[in-house]
Amino acid sequence: MKIGFIGLGAMGSGIAANILNAGHEVVAWNRSSGAVKALGEKGVKAANEPEDVLAGDALFSMLASDAAMRDVGLDGALLDRAPRGLVHVNMATVSVAFARELDRAHKKRGLGYVAAPVFGRPDVAAAGRLTVIAAGDALLVDRVRPILEKIGARFVVVGDKPEQANLLKIAGNFMIASAIETMGEAVALARKGGIEPSVFVDVMTNGLFASPMYQTYGSIIAERKFEPAGFKLTLGLKDAGLTLAAARELEVALPLASVVHDHFVEAKAKGLGVKDWSSLASLAAARAGLKE
Amino acid sequence: MKIGFIGLGAMGSGIAANILNAGHEVVAWNRSSGAVKALGEKGVKAANEPEDVLAGDALFSMLASDAAMRDVGLDGALLDRAPRGLVHVNMATVSVAFARELDRAHKKRGLGYVAAPVFGRPDVAAAGRLTVIAAGDALLVDRVRPILEKIGARFVVVGDKPEQANLLKIAGNFMIASAIETMGEAVALARKGGIEPSVFVDVMTNGLFASPMYQTYGSIIAERKFEPAGFKLTLGLKDAGLTLAAARELEVALPLASVVHDHFVEAKAKGLGVKDWSSLASLAAARAGLKE
Amino acid sequence: MKIGFIGLGAMGSGIAANILNAGHEVVAWNRSSGAVKALGEKGVKAANEPEDVLAGDALFSMLASDAAMRDVGLDGALLDRAPRGLVHVNMATVSVAFARELDRAHKKRGLGYVAAPVFGRPDVAAAGRLTVIAAGDALLVDRVRPILEKIGARFVVVGDKPEQANLLKIAGNFMIASAIETMGEAVALARKGGIEPSVFVDVMTNGLFASPMYQTYGSIIAERKFEPAGFKLTLGLKDAGLTLAAARELEVALPLASVVHDHFVEAKAKGLGVKDWSSLASLAAARAGLKE
Amino acid sequence: MKIGFIGLGAMGSGIAANILNAGHEVVAWNRSSGAVKALGEKGVKAANEPEDVLAGDALFSMLASDAAMRDVGLDGALLDRAPRGLVHVNMATVSVAFARELDRAHKKRGLGYVAAPVFGRPDVAAAGRLTVIAAGDALLVDRVRPILEKIGARFVVVGDKPEQANLLKIAGNFMIASAIETMGEAVALARKGGIEPSVFVDVMTNGLFASPMYQTYGSIIAERKFEPAGFKLTLGLKDAGLTLAAARELEVALPLASVVHDHFVEAKAKGLGVKDWSSLASLAAARAGLKE
Repeated sequence: MKIGFIGLGAMGSGIAANILNAGHEVVAWNRSSGAVKALGEKGVKAANEPEDVLAGDALFSMLASDAAMRDVGLDGALLDRAPRGLVHVNMATVSVAFARELDRAHKKRGLGYVAAPVFGRPDVAAAGRLTVIAAGDALLVDRVRPILEKIGARFVVVGDKPEQANLLKIAGNFMIASAIETMGEAVALARKGGIEPSVFVDVMTNGLFASPMYQTYGSIIAERKFEPAGFKLTLGLKDAGLTLAAARELEVALPLASVVHDHFVEAKAKGLGVKDWSSLASLAAARAGLKE
Repeated sequence: MKIGFIGLGAMGSGIAANILNAGHEVVAWNRSSGAVKALGEKGVKAANEPEDVLAGDALFSMLASDAAMRDVGLDGALLDRAPRGLVHVNMATVSVAFARELDRAHKKRGLGYVAAPVFGRPDVAAAGRLTVIAAGDALLVDRVRPILEKIGARFVVVGDKPEQANLLKIAGNFMIASAIETMGEAVALARKGGIEPSVFVDVMTNGLFASPMYQTYGSIIAERKFEPAGFKLTLGLKDAGLTLAAARELEVALPLASVVHDHFVEAKAKGLGVKDWSSLASLAAARAGLKE
Repeated sequence: MKIGFIGLGAMGSGIAANILNAGHEVVAWNRSSGAVKALGEKGVKAANEPEDVLAGDALFSMLASDAAMRDVGLDGALLDRAPRGLVHVNMATVSVAFARELDRAHKKRGLGYVAAPVFGRPDVAAAGRLTVIAAGDALLVDRVRPILEKIGARFVVVGDKPEQANLLKIAGNFMIASAIETMGEAVALARKGGIEPSVFVDVMTNGLFASPMYQTYGSIIAERKFEPAGFKLTLGLKDAGLTLAAARELEVALPLASVVHDHFVEAKAKGLGVKDWSSLASLAAARAGLKE
Repeated sequence: MKIGFIGLGAMGSGIAANILNAGHEVVAWNRSSGAVKALGEKGVKAANEPEDVLAGDALFSMLASDAAMRDVGLDGALLDRAPRGLVHVNMATVSVAFARELDRAHKKRGLGYVAAPVFGRPDVAAAGRLTVIAAGDALLVDRVRPILEKIGARFVVVGDKPEQANLLKIAGNFMIASAIETMGEAVALARKGGIEPSVFVDVMTNGLFASPMYQTYGSIIAERKFEPAGFKLTLGLKDAGLTLAAARELEVALPLASVVHDHFVEAKAKGLGVKDWSSLASLAAARAGLKE
């Protein structure tokens, strides 16, 4: 198939490369040209204009936020130039409200829209080991399924409304953020009682909580190595905001999510925005009067 | 060795059986006689009086709470009758303050005191697969280490003050309770957005959160099968209370732990005390206006 | 002066009547015509089109929300038809972000914009006893000051950026909502301990908390008379949402405000939306297992 | 009447003086002798031993905490020496659980026990303007009523169980602490939006919240003058702990009270223990990234 691709950031580059490796033709556009050039050496064709990515069998996009998608016109202006019947697979973590708006904007123009956000970091994307959460019209999902199955190690269809995939992703991100905050508080308690953080983390994350996510963040928290950031706190704040926005819209009270969001706000206001989002734990330590 | 044992509840019975199977002699006392009789068939000797368990090389105890230990006199009256030099290994989840009091009470009488709380449910105890967290004087810990290693699949020494083992256990329990509450909130959000809870839980607990604890509780929450209780909500409330008591004493602010504790209180006040502690999730659903 | 007026709800009607009584000419428009007719008998002139209110010395508006203002075109379309130099005094409680947008929209068209939200219920508005919080360019504020001083018993200028008046109003509303939630919790505690709610409320609101606000809501909470609603819970939820929106934008963590907001969401999801916002207290009672 | 008095701190001294001024004979004991000497000049007789205060018609006590009362033996040892029929009026803010224990301890010895905690600061106590909250057996309360009416400007009987007076006092203290935290958050929001704190506080505390409590603390918070402490943060933490202890015992979930308690813990851990308890507001400002 011939695939258009918008958004070659750390995540998008790995995904585009895997689509290419699966034998498809990829035409890509990115705001800055460096990433396009790097992929060009592997065989990805550079689009001069965003419009050039609309000519294929499907359009994939992986941008940073609702705002970034609006900037490119994926909420309207660019769609106006797309041929009827084109399927757009949006892998970005966008808000539930924007997902719904995008679905309508595509339907109105006779375009197909599938949401397919992913779990996994850039290295996982590059390795083709993402978990892909898809939602949308079943026929559309089936059309792009062969490609999505090459992108990830796991492929789950969650419903026929695109925003449901985004909601699942958002609820999942909340679970990660809450686990980080929880470890931060538990480690602060243990540490103030004279327990070595690494001992505590080792017991918990090699026992009841033996999963890669806990092990990764547990280790960062025990060692207090919040730089360089694997995932910046400002992005964690953005995601926590998406959780609360979805909760407001659906009228769901989420007490823990509210606490976690407030801690992200506090952390950013105190200058931790560029550190890893697990630096929530340094606030927890400070709340106990512990010094770095 | 000859081991005295107090407390043959669901946990204690499995542990005592494993000590016996490891080739030790076990003399046991329990408030109700049924459990002693059952173990008697396997070779455990019945003590007529609590005092009879003091004659061995070490005394193990596994009672339900600070109060249960006081009732038996393990905070003083019974200790008065113990021979100098006896080592008492306390496997109960007691408060940090009581652990410290017990340590002093033993020292004053020339007795040894080791705290060795465990992670694991009764079936894990019976299988000898517990995680044992020990703390106390290093020489004392070494004396009972051969037995503790038979009780569990994992044995960790966390410090030389007995209360540190209890603190680790308490902090770990908070992590579990917080994970349960988090899943309850995340599932409520997903469900109100039209996502099937089992789909959401399956994605998360076979991905980033692929650990037995998440899988067990995720499945209970998705199916809303809070009865019969694997671990009663009233016990979860007790443990959440121990977390906050330790936090008060050590002066550690724990915002998430406070929310979780309040939810346990609310759940008990609303009549969920006898259900599984994961029925916190049914409150989360109710907060979203979802019906059972 | 000749004053245009948009929005003759319970608040707007009282305000418009007071402007009239102060000797000014008032031309008013309202979506439904009943209120205009009622005021017409007092001397207010009815505008056939929203446009007809733009011809005076100043335009006053008092609409329910950001959305209601957009519906009428006060964010753009209607402003396009206003003569340069017109001053618009917006008394609505709108979001800080929308206040900023409105200021820009007016400036761009050569119009003046003053924010003048108020504290007080409809009966207070009718009596001309409101507290008026104004912000905007000092010269503009001075032009409309004579009218604003007739509307309220108290008139405070808070800054030269219109959104500051809205922020003060929003922060003030949070204080009221927090006081209600606090009384709800305190009364639940006292009541479960066997203290008569009216005794507790009487002691507190005639002592340290002897202000009309506490007395009004304290009495409602003690008697559990949440209907008819003086101020609907859905409106309380809207205001709590404005508080958190301002906090997000300004990067201020507000732990209490987040709890209060979650309780409004929970209350609405549980069907209390049409009751008085002080029915937050009935959730607090339910959390203690108390029955109505 | 002849009145024994224990506890001549800042509060007790003022109260004892007012009892004396009302024409009663007062025999007082205090751990340190300075206060006794000062009152001696006014006519209060010094007791050499705590026991000497037991010989009058009633015993009044005003000590700092549960622990201080135990130290003096008012939970048992000293009571053993009291003549049957003596009425003990305890004005201290003690825990609900301890109030219940004290009631039993008195009954067992044939002594009367009345709880009579007060609202008001030392200057209010000296002026005889306290609010006195009494609870206990109606006949006993009537016997000491003439004296309690001289101590305060307001006298309220809340129930026939002594602990109810303490519960009311504790719930009332929570209302104050919550109001302080609320103002701290609201001022942080206003201030980060460029509003002068004193303007915001003036609007609110001379309007809807026009009560002395809001005015006093609003002014401290606006000026950030947290020293010298009128009421130390460590005492606020103690009171917040009493609120949560009562809530635990009565099984009442108090989300706001839990947040406020955590903030007191955080404040103490960060070194604010000796400042005024309204320095909670400096944490709120710091959470918004505002500098002192």
